[in-house]
Amino acid sequence: MNRQPKSTVTSSDDKKPRRSRPAVIDMDIHHEIRGLGDLLPYLPEQWKRYISDYGWVPERPIPFNQIRKDTKYRMDARPEDGATPGSDYELLKRQLLDEHHVEYGMLTGWFYEATVCKGWYEFAAARASAYNDYTAEHWLDRDPRLLGSITIPREPAAAVREIDRMAAHPQMKQVMLPIADFAWGDPYYHPIFEAAHRHGLPIAMHLSAIITAQGGDFLRYYVAWRSVHPQAYMTQTISLITNGVFDKYPDLQVSLVEGGFEWVPFMMHRMDSAYKALRQETPWVKRMPSAYFRDNMRFTTQPWDDLSGEQFMHIIGLMESDEMLMYASDYPHWDFDPAARTLPPGIPETLRRKILYDNARSYLRL
Amino acid sequence: MNRQPKSTVTSSDDKKPRRSRPAVIDMDIHHEIRGLGDLLPYLPEQWKRYISDYGWVPERPIPFNQIRKDTKYRMDARPEDGATPGSDYELLKRQLLDEHHVEYGMLTGWFYEATVCKGWYEFAAARASAYNDYTAEHWLDRDPRLLGSITIPREPAAAVREIDRMAAHPQMKQVMLPIADFAWGDPYYHPIFEAAHRHGLPIAMHLSAIITAQGGDFLRYYVAWRSVHPQAYMTQTISLITNGVFDKYPDLQVSLVEGGFEWVPFMMHRMDSAYKALRQETPWVKRMPSAYFRDNMRFTTQPWDDLSGEQFMHIIGLMESDEMLMYASDYPHWDFDPAARTLPPGIPETLRRKILYDNARSYLRL
Repeated sequence: MNRQPKSTVTSSDDKKPRRSRPAVIDMDIHHEIRGLGDLLPYLPEQWKRYISDYGWVPERPIPFNQIRKDTKYRMDARPEDGATPGSDYELLKRQLLDEHHVEYGMLTGWFYEATVCKGWYEFAAARASAYNDYTAEHWLDRDPRLLGSITIPREPAAAVREIDRMAAHPQMKQVMLPIADFAWGDPYYHPIFEAAHRHGLPIAMHLSAIITAQGGDFLRYYVAWRSVHPQAYMTQTISLITNGVFDKYPDLQVSLVEGGFEWVPFMMHRMDSAYKALRQETPWVKRMPSAYFRDNMRFTTQPWDDLSGEQFMHIIGLMESDEMLMYASDYPHWDFDPAARTLPPGIPETLRRKILYDNARSYLRL
Repeated sequence: MNRQPKSTVTSSDDKKPRRSRPAVIDMDIHHEIRGLGDLLPYLPEQWKRYISDYGWVPERPIPFNQIRKDTKYRMDARPEDGATPGSDYELLKRQLLDEHHVEYGMLTGWFYEATVCKGWYEFAAARASAYNDYTAEHWLDRDPRLLGSITIPREPAAAVREIDRMAAHPQMKQVMLPIADFAWGDPYYHPIFEAAHRHGLPIAMHLSAIITAQGGDFLRYYVAWRSVHPQAYMTQTISLITNGVFDKYPDLQVSLVEGGFEWVPFMMHRMDSAYKALRQETPWVKRMPSAYFRDNMRFTTQPWDDLSGEQFMHIIGLMESDEMLMYASDYPHWDFDPAARTLPPGIPETLRRKILYDNARSYLRL
């Protein structure tokens, strides 16, 4: 039992008291396939041939060039055999899960093309299924710390079949809806929300490569493209709320991953103002928009925009909630945020723990 | 001389000390034509006939219905003769300038179609010129408190001619670039910025009716459309900065009118982060993006999103500047914000004065 008196002054020679390391849940880990060959074992013969024999590859619509070779990834994230960063379980385990003491890590992948591609839904459905089976066998089955996101095709009936199929896996803990140039709140997609809600699964939204700015203008520079990302997330929140998704599925949780969070209080206030004056137009929306933000939406912390502790506390003050943020690392991408250093000094310990762990645990119903 | 001791308790019977009324500059007043007939005297015969003989009218692309008759305007803003609200100088003078003690009022009009319309640039240039002449004769010449915004066609050479023509008018104090689905930072438009800069005129940007959400999805509801507006302003700030407009024209001031301001610190932080990592791609951008926000951009207060004084001070804390906001009323529109009641209690007096007056005076070089 420690009976030493507490001291407010600590000389640098004093041995610092060992702080208990806070538990960490990482909500955005991009595991990757080494190539389309990884999916072949899981594809029916009909579709396998498109890849193995006919050379089909997904579209690559990113509207700018990577500005240097390999800059998409952390310098040290490429496996020794030269495979795609994020494709090697042992390396990911060592560099992320072990080194950063991640208790649970959510795999978000990088195979959103199966969802956001236009048309050819049967093939897209087969690719989504193959990717889910690959994730389960190559990743989830190897490490109980890893959790998975169910990849779906965009066509709602096929998406519901895939959710029903994969929800049985105990480590598949959310459904992934990548963000592209269409809005998921449209009633056409409601069967997807219904299925997730029925299985008690939350929905994650993560940007895909297909993002244009408001107005559709071509984005010539990566810095502009990156600055535009949050607009795509705003569009989704407006679409979900005005189309009554949370009124139809009140227990549904939606996380917006890698879209920033500093814009969130502004969006809450803007929508509340508009709703107060104009709600007669959308009578199915029963609550103030900010209530859906607070109760149904979560936002991840990466990429952290160099905010000081004081600036961050202004944002929390505007949000009026300490339950909306969840930590994410974005491993193995170049703008990786480590758990121990993402949040700046000056943040209350309770809030830090909620962001690093508690809020994600509630979201995931762990 | 008042020698009564100060009291912290004031009974409701006490006569309140008369506070000096702060001076007001209103940066967004929508004067309107009664109809296209008002422009006919200023149009060359060639173009006049399109309106008087052939029944030409501007496109009306607003993507939703007004949800009630006349809801675009303040209930009391329609003149007795039934003309369009905002078209009657005497009523505007009484309801706005006199009643709200406006020292200077910036007319922003509502004739943005001449700028944002596609093609037919000669006719658009003629309409813009006619509208400027109408504004000068019907409004500016009648009241020295009124200031004007130069309407331009979108085609840069014709726009520059119109700026050169109108800059001589002593009450024409800014150039209006309406916001639609294209980004003004594109080098194609730089001659317009060059002309404004050369004349020492700031640029105002105000949304037009042509605004789609990021992704281009159709916006079914006014509440959604309104919540999307700020995205269009974000796109313009990104476009101006990444295309180096403020590096080419360092003294240029740009005001973003009716687009909100709560998103501004978030955009500053997001762009700074992106720029730190990716500036090699845009070497002509010499300063941190937030520096251009602070030094070259101004934002108007209307529509005020029901922020408390405390919330507002969080935003100012995040902005780290008290010089970026300017008051606007949006008269005669339904969401009119009166000068005396827009800013909530709890805002320091110096800041209040800067927002209501000083910041606009600097911007306008008065």
